[in-house]
Amino acid sequence: MKMCITTTAVALALAAQVAWAESPRSEPVQPVPVANISQPALAELGKKLFFDPRLSKSGFISCNSCHNLSMGGTDNLKTSIGHNWQQGPINSPTVLNSSLNLAQFWDGRAADLKEQAGGPIANPGEMAFTHELAIGVLQSIPGYVAEFEVVFGKSELDIDMVTDAIAAFEETLVTPHSPFDQWLLGDDDAITEQALAGYQLFKQSGCVACHNGPNLGGTSFQKMGVVEPYRSDSDAIGRAAVTGKDADRFTFKVPTLRNVELTYPYFHDGEAATLEEAVDIMGRLQLGRVYSEQEIGQIVAFLKSLTGEQPRFELPILPPSTNETPAPEPFG
Amino acid sequence: MKMCITTTAVALALAAQVAWAESPRSEPVQPVPVANISQPALAELGKKLFFDPRLSKSGFISCNSCHNLSMGGTDNLKTSIGHNWQQGPINSPTVLNSSLNLAQFWDGRAADLKEQAGGPIANPGEMAFTHELAIGVLQSIPGYVAEFEVVFGKSELDIDMVTDAIAAFEETLVTPHSPFDQWLLGDDDAITEQALAGYQLFKQSGCVACHNGPNLGGTSFQKMGVVEPYRSDSDAIGRAAVTGKDADRFTFKVPTLRNVELTYPYFHDGEAATLEEAVDIMGRLQLGRVYSEQEIGQIVAFLKSLTGEQPRFELPILPPSTNETPAPEPFG
Repeated sequence: MKMCITTTAVALALAAQVAWAESPRSEPVQPVPVANISQPALAELGKKLFFDPRLSKSGFISCNSCHNLSMGGTDNLKTSIGHNWQQGPINSPTVLNSSLNLAQFWDGRAADLKEQAGGPIANPGEMAFTHELAIGVLQSIPGYVAEFEVVFGKSELDIDMVTDAIAAFEETLVTPHSPFDQWLLGDDDAITEQALAGYQLFKQSGCVACHNGPNLGGTSFQKMGVVEPYRSDSDAIGRAAVTGKDADRFTFKVPTLRNVELTYPYFHDGEAATLEEAVDIMGRLQLGRVYSEQEIGQIVAFLKSLTGEQPRFELPILPPSTNETPAPEPFG
Repeated sequence: MKMCITTTAVALALAAQVAWAESPRSEPVQPVPVANISQPALAELGKKLFFDPRLSKSGFISCNSCHNLSMGGTDNLKTSIGHNWQQGPINSPTVLNSSLNLAQFWDGRAADLKEQAGGPIANPGEMAFTHELAIGVLQSIPGYVAEFEVVFGKSELDIDMVTDAIAAFEETLVTPHSPFDQWLLGDDDAITEQALAGYQLFKQSGCVACHNGPNLGGTSFQKMGVVEPYRSDSDAIGRAAVTGKDADRFTFKVPTLRNVELTYPYFHDGEAATLEEAVDIMGRLQLGRVYSEQEIGQIVAFLKSLTGEQPRFELPILPPSTNETPAPEPFG
């Protein structure tokens, strides 16, 4: 008899779970989908490349240096450190869930992750290498050549293969199952009352007009400083650098709010050190609204419920260079 | 019947294996012991700290930056890059199997891994922080404080606890089961004839006088340039910096040859780019012997048989900073 009751309880619980999955709440924000890894060997190769500093002139800077997967896919610096300790012009955006964005970089100058991946390698202020030199390094490493051959069926490497692989790895970097996503799927107890109040305020006061979709952002370009201008020492002019239009000055891709607890400091110039500061500034500059301390606390509680499961994987072991591999030039 | 034969075969194979383990070859080199992780929680905490760039002034450099566990526990640079892209004075030694060394650093100025771990954090040319500031950062991070409390039973952090944890992680970084170790344990087929000839030559011509023990090195300090002086642009004077004795000038801890295929470039100044070059120079300068090309090939084949199983573990996810955490100062 006891057995029957238990079974029934399990059945009810399962039914409830199915019900969530079938009828998520109808909201302007959707859960982060679990990664669908269609080409695991390609993604594994991309993981190695993502962690390989030999894609930089110095042999010291890898993708993971500024998009550190131990730290929310960012470097947690205002602006990044590039080759020869150059100060970057902009805050390094998180690589987590970046496949959900309409375009890449703050100004959207790359259409997708594949196009983005080639940028920093050849940027003189970042990895300071060239695509040709990077390919020369990889081509000299038998461990890589063999892996490229398995994945692509050819052993003559090119930058397209490299960026394909890095993008495939980055597509795996999603963070599902955050408390807020569990709430979205019907679990009333997944977030606190304070966080729920924060979400209601986030919707009612207009944040969600830009921070929407599964990534709570990444769906549009918007002007930084709508009601009041944003004052910054940053030289970044945003989307105008891509379109050439004055109307696009200080227009940036709306950043994701997923894992925002981990991706401090905030804004394209990294000038907001805390979530409280960022919410206060956004309210005043974008919405013309001064949030009370209590309201800021509610919105921040909501934002912290957006921290999902971080990607978990083994640190890759990189294939060694050979006598034929060009040496890095950190001080050259 | 077939079943019985199979069982007998298995029994014989097992007996052979036991025989290896019980009677390893009697050689001046011994197998790397498998890690005995006596305090797993302490080592896990140490792994996080090893990967945490917040132990540096810039928030950009971690232990793993120069002792990269994707690349044989080194940075594969002649000399390392420190805070503000300063050029380090010496080649970064591998952290792999470093618990087997008689002392740490090229000049042995740290008695053990715990003492070593505090050095780079406070070295103005490396992580450029202070122990006090590093503790202030960690103390402001609840995720760390909770983990220190579990491990040490107290929530007031100090640098001793930090270096204890990093050393405990580093003690796990051993690389057993190399082909050569399998040969040492009795498997005649584990290395090639060329590698075996290289090992015989390595022993007969005197390399093993210094490169001995389980780490093929790390057991003594020796002068670099015994028969002929070593010409270098490096300012490093070696052990004399510790002892103050002229006799110790250019005397360095004998480096391990374990995983030497992965830890290029070679020597304290990183000036030997290839194993062939390193073997040639060692022969002439230390032994007064000019190895033939064939002999160098044999010794290099032996050296490549020393690559063991690299430590495999999940990339740690670091606990986030809080509003109270002092911000890094990469450009300050």
